[in-house]
Amino acid sequence: MIITNNGAMSMDIYDIIIIGGGAAGMSAAIYALRGGMKTLVLERLAIGGQAAKTYEIDNYPGFYNTPSGPDLMADFKKHAEKLGAQIRTEAVRDIINIDGDIKTVKTRRGEYNTKTVIFALGASPKKLGVKGEAELMGAGVSYCATCDGAFFKDLDTAVIGGGNTAMEDALYLSRFASHVTILNRSKRFRASKALLDKAYNNSKITILPDTVAEAFLGDMRLDTIVTKNTQTGEIGELKANGVIIAVGITPDTELAKKCGVALSENGFIITDTNLKTNIDGVYAAGDCRVSPLRQVVTAAADGAVSATSAINYLMQIGD
Amino acid sequence: MIITNNGAMSMDIYDIIIIGGGAAGMSAAIYALRGGMKTLVLERLAIGGQAAKTYEIDNYPGFYNTPSGPDLMADFKKHAEKLGAQIRTEAVRDIINIDGDIKTVKTRRGEYNTKTVIFALGASPKKLGVKGEAELMGAGVSYCATCDGAFFKDLDTAVIGGGNTAMEDALYLSRFASHVTILNRSKRFRASKALLDKAYNNSKITILPDTVAEAFLGDMRLDTIVTKNTQTGEIGELKANGVIIAVGITPDTELAKKCGVALSENGFIITDTNLKTNIDGVYAAGDCRVSPLRQVVTAAADGAVSATSAINYLMQIGD
Repeated sequence: MIITNNGAMSMDIYDIIIIGGGAAGMSAAIYALRGGMKTLVLERLAIGGQAAKTYEIDNYPGFYNTPSGPDLMADFKKHAEKLGAQIRTEAVRDIINIDGDIKTVKTRRGEYNTKTVIFALGASPKKLGVKGEAELMGAGVSYCATCDGAFFKDLDTAVIGGGNTAMEDALYLSRFASHVTILNRSKRFRASKALLDKAYNNSKITILPDTVAEAFLGDMRLDTIVTKNTQTGEIGELKANGVIIAVGITPDTELAKKCGVALSENGFIITDTNLKTNIDGVYAAGDCRVSPLRQVVTAAADGAVSATSAINYLMQIGD
Repeated sequence: MIITNNGAMSMDIYDIIIIGGGAAGMSAAIYALRGGMKTLVLERLAIGGQAAKTYEIDNYPGFYNTPSGPDLMADFKKHAEKLGAQIRTEAVRDIINIDGDIKTVKTRRGEYNTKTVIFALGASPKKLGVKGEAELMGAGVSYCATCDGAFFKDLDTAVIGGGNTAMEDALYLSRFASHVTILNRSKRFRASKALLDKAYNNSKITILPDTVAEAFLGDMRLDTIVTKNTQTGEIGELKANGVIIAVGITPDTELAKKCGVALSENGFIITDTNLKTNIDGVYAAGDCRVSPLRQVVTAAADGAVSATSAINYLMQIGD
């Protein structure tokens, strides 16, 4: 029985608490448990994160039969559970004494003491919130060219957005799609001039400034984007069987921010190469951190690295 | 038909040539091919790298049935081939004009022109070269505690080496093994004092200085390590059902070194967070690069990041 510094009583001190049960969190659990660590995963919703909301995943190496996102994430969960993972469906509200040796993770249901924390909080692509967007997601509407672009081979496609990611996505699609139309809400593009020039000079790319998507139409699959000119109000139609919505990504890092974890300008958690944050014993993994690529495989690798770093830290401090 | 700067003629210019067909190389191929890139993989031996020489792999997230290393790597290969991977069994001898826009990769059989190169060259653990080591590999003899330690639960174990990795491995094993004996060839340890102290103070760890392993004995599985005192010559026997040999890792980076790629003191390729090397259009992925952890999942993530970076570079330069 241990009396913690905030007066609560607890039988248990966890070695590692993982907050978030997506690909990064499940992988961190696998590595923590194989390392003999007393481990708890706290996930506020269903296990699987963004990947579990993905229609099919064609690029997690080794799963060559293009599993559905939910199926792939079910296998991640089975893997962690086979190794004895303790998973609770609880939203974390706060972490007390986060920079102390024993940190107290508070949820609506209780408190858990732990020596280390891994934030695997995830991120979500920004939605347009227009008609047909949710209904046709995975059926032509996508938020990730690297993930889904290959499904758009020889199709008429569109990219929505005016930043670097939108230009990169359009150039990426131009390699194999029939045509790519870029829709940007104004005449001003946030993208670098170099990328914008590449897009303008690409014969397979058309750029429509001052244009937004008003609706996505299609029966079983996207076939038409209803467009609106933001200057004239004119309504138009664009034939497209695939669209990448590239208007930004929002990390789910409010909890980390509240706890004093250092974030980038865009709200992503800053880590070193061992995935340690600015706080001792606190790590970040997956989409919620500053990283060059956000995929199931990079999240899974982050889980492995963060758990291994936490284990090394625990061995250094002794216990 | 293109006349290259060294006079050779070639019909083809590849977008991406991947050198090495382990987990990193196969993953890079998957990402390159899904990105519509003209891609070639050159591997001097069999596909699968170190992982294909591993008895079983319990920690590649999603593969919860503990596949054999060869089986897992066969699935990586199938995945790349399903996407149209062109794989040739050829050892690369040199790369001409590596810092030019078109680089020429030379093998014994021919030359291949390419705009980018991904080094996925791998690394090998250093062997002791003693009796029984090769025969009992995967049957109690291992070179990676993070990979195989969990198979040593409740067993008498040993760690061979005196550096930080050896101490970390011993501390790691001490969490779940019955006992851990560290064998180091001299009284001097390369490990940091902090880690060494942790090992000395751990009741489950015994340290034997001035001791080497002379042979590994066991019928189907390791049961005894024959030891020799390097000062007295005395021969002894140590009961052990699992041993981690942690005497170093050698990156297979001779080709990269020859080509002018910047290496660390220990010979690993130095990259930025996008896995770019010091040379434009040249990337490194997997065990051959400086990284905090070397696992199948981290190699696979590296493959994804390096290919995506190469694709972004190709879009920047235009083609």
